Amino acid sequence: MRLIIGLDPGLAATGWGIIEASGNRLRHIAHGTVKTAAAAPLAERLVALYDGLVAVIAAHGATEAAVEEVFVNANPQSTLKLGQARGVVLLAAGRAGLPVHEYSTRLVKKALTGTGAAEKAQVQAMVERLLPGIKVTGADAADALAVAIAHAHLRGRPQ
Amino acid sequence: MRLIIGLDPGLAATGWGIIEASGNRLRHIAHGTVKTAAAAPLAERLVALYDGLVAVIAAHGATEAAVEEVFVNANPQSTLKLGQARGVVLLAAGRAGLPVHEYSTRLVKKALTGTGAAEKAQVQAMVERLLPGIKVTGADAADALAVAIAHAHLRGRPQ
Repeated sequence: MRLIIGLDPGLAATGWGIIEASGNRLRHIAHGTVKTAAAAPLAERLVALYDGLVAVIAAHGATEAAVEEVFVNANPQSTLKLGQARGVVLLAAGRAGLPVHEYSTRLVKKALTGTGAAEKAQVQAMVERLLPGIKVTGADAADALAVAIAHAHLRGRPQ
Repeated sequence: MRLIIGLDPGLAATGWGIIEASGNRLRHIAHGTVKTAAAAPLAERLVALYDGLVAVIAAHGATEAAVEEVFVNANPQSTLKLGQARGVVLLAAGRAGLPVHEYSTRLVKKALTGTGAAEKAQVQAMVERLLPGIKVTGADAADALAVAIAHAHLRGRPQ
């Protein structure tokens, strides 16, 4: 049995979603968003993000992590900000002893819908179809669950 | 008495330098570089960087941190990589309870040499003049000591 945490990094909001994968069967465990206060100094926001993710991993457990690769923005300041958050997200997973896998948004979309060009709403609909009975709250958490599902599929069979 | 850790973030090598500041007097405490293996997975490199900095702060102590602002590169992949390392560096200082201050390279150069356009070698020579008796090993550590000195100067008097 694998307990996969999917992560969609961002400084203002990092989505997370945990699923259990046994063979082809997926089960939803929990999902949510760690938010940080825009008015706080950068180092404090990164501490809040890190501590929030450490608490999530401690509360629900996880055996592996899947992280969405960052869309590298045309705006270097945005890329830097996202990079700083992403470093902290990877650190939280790495220090918890989880193997960390990275997937491009395109590959996640393809794994869930069959096409790398799928719309966000289409991906979210597939997340709710593949994890029946849940209603995902928040786009970041939906993206996090999507990368967890993609990882379950892609690592569960020969590539 | 203030114990300032200066930090020059990078994924392959993060320079650090600790100085003691009492009024106008500066004293060198220690300096060095935390390096990470290029061949290791990203999450492992970030863990090594974080753990290395936590150990440095635990060994020498610090009451405040000064971090060099990142030169935002034309290459978005480089900016992202640097951002990831920088996030972890800011986190290590923040979780140690240190107030974290950020300074542009230009301001650091100006504080040490009087001009924001100074050459690297000129800055390093000033570091060694202001901290007599030391020989700085490594350009990253020299930059880290420079940002610590700049912080001691700029925060030690009205701006």
